[in-house]
Amino acid sequence: MNPFRLALLNPNTDAGHTEAMAAVAGEALGDCGEIVALTASRGPASIESAADDVVAAGEVVEMLGRAGECDAYLVACFGDPGLHAARELTDRPVVGIGEAALHAAALVAGRFAIVTTLRRGIPDLEDMVDREGQAHRCAAILALEVPVSQQGAGHPSSTQAILAAGREAIEDHGADALVLACGAMADVAREVSETLRVPVCDGVAFGTMLAYGLWRCGLRTSKVGMFAAPEPIEYLGMRAPGAAA
Amino acid sequence: MNPFRLALLNPNTDAGHTEAMAAVAGEALGDCGEIVALTASRGPASIESAADDVVAAGEVVEMLGRAGECDAYLVACFGDPGLHAARELTDRPVVGIGEAALHAAALVAGRFAIVTTLRRGIPDLEDMVDREGQAHRCAAILALEVPVSQQGAGHPSSTQAILAAGREAIEDHGADALVLACGAMADVAREVSETLRVPVCDGVAFGTMLAYGLWRCGLRTSKVGMFAAPEPIEYLGMRAPGAAA
Amino acid sequence: MNPFRLALLNPNTDAGHTEAMAAVAGEALGDCGEIVALTASRGPASIESAADDVVAAGEVVEMLGRAGECDAYLVACFGDPGLHAARELTDRPVVGIGEAALHAAALVAGRFAIVTTLRRGIPDLEDMVDREGQAHRCAAILALEVPVSQQGAGHPSSTQAILAAGREAIEDHGADALVLACGAMADVAREVSETLRVPVCDGVAFGTMLAYGLWRCGLRTSKVGMFAAPEPIEYLGMRAPGAAA
Amino acid sequence: MNPFRLALLNPNTDAGHTEAMAAVAGEALGDCGEIVALTASRGPASIESAADDVVAAGEVVEMLGRAGECDAYLVACFGDPGLHAARELTDRPVVGIGEAALHAAALVAGRFAIVTTLRRGIPDLEDMVDREGQAHRCAAILALEVPVSQQGAGHPSSTQAILAAGREAIEDHGADALVLACGAMADVAREVSETLRVPVCDGVAFGTMLAYGLWRCGLRTSKVGMFAAPEPIEYLGMRAPGAAA
Amino acid sequence: MNPFRLALLNPNTDAGHTEAMAAVAGEALGDCGEIVALTASRGPASIESAADDVVAAGEVVEMLGRAGECDAYLVACFGDPGLHAARELTDRPVVGIGEAALHAAALVAGRFAIVTTLRRGIPDLEDMVDREGQAHRCAAILALEVPVSQQGAGHPSSTQAILAAGREAIEDHGADALVLACGAMADVAREVSETLRVPVCDGVAFGTMLAYGLWRCGLRTSKVGMFAAPEPIEYLGMRAPGAAA
Amino acid sequence: MNPFRLALLNPNTDAGHTEAMAAVAGEALGDCGEIVALTASRGPASIESAADDVVAAGEVVEMLGRAGECDAYLVACFGDPGLHAARELTDRPVVGIGEAALHAAALVAGRFAIVTTLRRGIPDLEDMVDREGQAHRCAAILALEVPVSQQGAGHPSSTQAILAAGREAIEDHGADALVLACGAMADVAREVSETLRVPVCDGVAFGTMLAYGLWRCGLRTSKVGMFAAPEPIEYLGMRAPGAAA
Repeated sequence: MNPFRLALLNPNTDAGHTEAMAAVAGEALGDCGEIVALTASRGPASIESAADDVVAAGEVVEMLGRAGECDAYLVACFGDPGLHAARELTDRPVVGIGEAALHAAALVAGRFAIVTTLRRGIPDLEDMVDREGQAHRCAAILALEVPVSQQGAGHPSSTQAILAAGREAIEDHGADALVLACGAMADVAREVSETLRVPVCDGVAFGTMLAYGLWRCGLRTSKVGMFAAPEPIEYLGMRAPGAAA
Repeated sequence: MNPFRLALLNPNTDAGHTEAMAAVAGEALGDCGEIVALTASRGPASIESAADDVVAAGEVVEMLGRAGECDAYLVACFGDPGLHAARELTDRPVVGIGEAALHAAALVAGRFAIVTTLRRGIPDLEDMVDREGQAHRCAAILALEVPVSQQGAGHPSSTQAILAAGREAIEDHGADALVLACGAMADVAREVSETLRVPVCDGVAFGTMLAYGLWRCGLRTSKVGMFAAPEPIEYLGMRAPGAAA
Repeated sequence: MNPFRLALLNPNTDAGHTEAMAAVAGEALGDCGEIVALTASRGPASIESAADDVVAAGEVVEMLGRAGECDAYLVACFGDPGLHAARELTDRPVVGIGEAALHAAALVAGRFAIVTTLRRGIPDLEDMVDREGQAHRCAAILALEVPVSQQGAGHPSSTQAILAAGREAIEDHGADALVLACGAMADVAREVSETLRVPVCDGVAFGTMLAYGLWRCGLRTSKVGMFAAPEPIEYLGMRAPGAAA
Repeated sequence: MNPFRLALLNPNTDAGHTEAMAAVAGEALGDCGEIVALTASRGPASIESAADDVVAAGEVVEMLGRAGECDAYLVACFGDPGLHAARELTDRPVVGIGEAALHAAALVAGRFAIVTTLRRGIPDLEDMVDREGQAHRCAAILALEVPVSQQGAGHPSSTQAILAAGREAIEDHGADALVLACGAMADVAREVSETLRVPVCDGVAFGTMLAYGLWRCGLRTSKVGMFAAPEPIEYLGMRAPGAAA
Repeated sequence: MNPFRLALLNPNTDAGHTEAMAAVAGEALGDCGEIVALTASRGPASIESAADDVVAAGEVVEMLGRAGECDAYLVACFGDPGLHAARELTDRPVVGIGEAALHAAALVAGRFAIVTTLRRGIPDLEDMVDREGQAHRCAAILALEVPVSQQGAGHPSSTQAILAAGREAIEDHGADALVLACGAMADVAREVSETLRVPVCDGVAFGTMLAYGLWRCGLRTSKVGMFAAPEPIEYLGMRAPGAAA
Repeated sequence: MNPFRLALLNPNTDAGHTEAMAAVAGEALGDCGEIVALTASRGPASIESAADDVVAAGEVVEMLGRAGECDAYLVACFGDPGLHAARELTDRPVVGIGEAALHAAALVAGRFAIVTTLRRGIPDLEDMVDREGQAHRCAAILALEVPVSQQGAGHPSSTQAILAAGREAIEDHGADALVLACGAMADVAREVSETLRVPVCDGVAFGTMLAYGLWRCGLRTSKVGMFAAPEPIEYLGMRAPGAAA
């Protein structure tokens, strides 16, 4: 068996963010395989709104083509932009870091809380949790009112805010695990977990391992239903997603 | 009060389709206002997959800018691509024809059935019905296996297939109304309704009237929560959606 | 096409309330049509309990007959008493102001809050929101503990209470729109909206426009399922609802 | 302790039906107490539509007053008309035979099916099952297309139709118990159960025992929330429900 | 008809607890029948965790055999351990006190709150409420942080804690009835109800009456679906549950 | 880092079954770690009923102690018996093969169908799917009426039955992936997948990789909520689960 190659697709244009997430993914994967990390070639430096998300979804599709053939793909933004489109365009496993974090929480905890950046994003997270069927396990969604651009190990005050929100989630809302709803928080997951003594579920690391697990089991995206290859529709002014150049 | 101007945004590139939908919308609106119809400037001629939908969402955002200031906007594709992004980018009402058709069905029927083009689209329609909170009213979703490009008054055999599916929905699944899940079916809604003697809910006509009704009531998209204007994120290689040229 | 005639059916016996609601409906409709307003001929001056609601439902049925043939009917009490019975008794559209307010909120906001009169009514509102499939969009239901009889533009202290509840809904519960759960609050909707800068969804105005929209689209209540005309059951001591005199 | 007195309130005007249900209730109760059976003084001979239900709800309220003080009340129509109003008007337990049948099914079976009279009633039964939180236990709802007036032990062909529907429910839908959705079917429950060898849940008998059980436990309807006594609203042209003559 | 015999199965090993629950059940049943009370022969003195519950479920199965033929069985621990297994092993009614308390609450109240012992048990109670379809009626679940072993009439400070939690449930969460989630609280239900003036639903008393009611109606556990007798699987090192000695 | 050691706990007493599952798990894990496989020391040879499940849950707890310290534990029976108890008794990850199969299906498919052994087990599977929040993704649950003991690669006629059920699921119910609801089917998953050309999700292989992924990410079972170590309750006649000998 050849070594496992995972394409990590960062849908924002912040290459430093890509690098940080690739490090987290690589540490999880260890010598089980290698990470090929891509950064969106255009679009927002971080993704905070539905308008940003529309652009990001297009970039995920573009990066999927740019990455070439890999064993699996990781959509590395918590909102999982373009995930369904990506699944149509390949039969290899495609995992989103948002769904991955919820999978992790469902396995190690009874009730999780999500810590996110801005209040405005809470309804979308509620909808995502509903869509993933995890509403009964979600104790709370708390916003820091600190944007993506100020998250990560380089922003200690954000980490303090995450810790405060985490304590509130555990003590007031009955959470026994945390989900960090932003790829940029991945590199502080361990610190938060050690301080608060609860599992902190980061979708970058666990999404990497979900993709690896699917690959080890020979599980590929189904091609007979909603994720079948796109219909051969005529495109105007651009190539159809996934079409050869 | 100035006359009501509604921008109908067709996210596919088929101008004939735009024209047909604009006629349906105009007939509903009558002399209450006028329709400004736009066609996507690039992308798929019809929207049948998630990959097409990603492109379509981007075109909706683009057309919203191109349309200029109108009193309301209608996203004229049943999957409502880019609807949330569009709501962020304006405070005027934005209505999707998919949600509009479900609103109509909830008002005139007990149990509706959806007739759609391809089987592969059924899971997405199920998810949409769930998201809109209408699963308890949805008796069935039936696919014709006839693509969008062969729908409409110019394709009588498609109309026959819609009638057959409609009869099955009413007799076997207990539906008392039909929803046509494709803008291209809008111009046969009346014929189907008269033949089967049940309401046939088309989102182009009713979405137009929802937009008009919101405008008459002075209701605009909320700007304090999930539909607030996008955060001022730095964009690379392109203008941010909604940013001035 | 003849002008649109909408019968507004006020199921309580307070004619001043009818007049106020007719003014709101008429302002929404403008010169699109005319409002025929009816007041219950017997029963409670306002509707605050299930016992009142039973009487109100009977009055809605009675007023439907009294109104004679109109193009559509508006049940003008937030609990939508007798709505299903009314739909059985005519094939014209029948809209309830409760459901109408929720339709409006779903179109212009992400998360709405309901402001109501008495705490005791909250469970019924929760059940209504569930039944309409809008629980995922409902951020909170807040009671003023001020009865219907003291609502409206003539009771400024009630308006202050609505404003306070609205602020709590927005700031503490994440609502981005308000629904006023009482026809008597219709005439303060605009003031509340302008003060709090969020959409305030009043079912009298928007229900009027929903009915108008259905009529423009030729959509009538389905007669083949749960809203078919009542079975011809023998009635003792009274005429069957809808039977000719 | 005085003997238990249960008022059985039949909301239709068919006294023969009342008698048959009183016999079933009396057999269940045995010498634990006595049944006081009342028949609606006006309205439909059977209840098949929402319009009938509006009248029936009013009659339930009327009969509650007419019955005078009893230890508990049984609303003896499967649609439970006026149940919430009745709960407001007394602090004694009030049980509906529709809810009672679902309580029984939840206790003796894994998946029940409902057998009802007319297809048009299926959506209302679906809504009732949802409202009672039993949708996950409901395998199917099957209609005989035989009206209420032709149900009961005096109509052997209806019993044959119930048996056929029951077999279909068990074999094709995985039901392991039946619910008979019509008080008029109560007297054939035993025959159906013995023939099909599954529990047949009749709400008349079990509702009687629920009421008795609540009484034995000293449990009365809560008076602090949604079932508090109606607000003292002014009534025009009639006495308020529950008001002294 | 022979007198009704109910086996009360206490899955913990605290005989004093058995005695207290038997007294509550006997008072509810009065001279309608008799209680045969059994105590687990091994295992935990109280049941506070899933690990305790696994042992308790085995003891319920064992006690069912030990009890011999009775008319009905009551699983007397709020978590209803082994309830489904017990239903497979007899065709007589088997009722759990947890489900019984929720049945009672659904009949006498609009919104109930559960008062339980330890915070750690809240997620399991939430899951149980979901499974029983009563989440829409559950206003809150509040924990005393007082273990089972310190509950009951002999521990007045626990009763004070229950009263405080009950007040919070009613005033802050809108509950109009309480459910005591622990068999050991059964003997203080009346005091709590009289003090707070809301129904207090105890599953020991009402579960007894549910079982009696099922028996009076001739309703037995269905044997054709999920509660059919266990398949004749070969057992190693022990007798199969329910197998003759 | 030491090599990963996973304890596979087979709760039935069929050592051949253990061996087959260990082979599947070992193939998935490859040289990422090693499998320590345990077989229940007493109880049923296969698990087909709730009564069997009660015994199996006890055996899982027993085996957890017998296995000694491992890096993770796999409960290798589709019903996930004793899973929550096991999570209380260790802070290492514990994964059930039932939940694992659903996790896999959610990642590679739009709508899955479950193929199980006996019809009687369908309601429990429906409840499990609900509990895991995956009902919206479950297209059908189909039973073979072939018991566990006749499943696996040694029973080609069972494999034919699985293939027939799988075809029905795909063609009639719109499934695009299959879940095999029995550990004994694990060794035919590949053949079924290759024949039907859809992903076949087996929880033994994917559960192994979930456990490995959690371990790689440093994620352990939360110890602050519902999975905290059991309370120190006094046990009679036996050691408390997890207590030192």
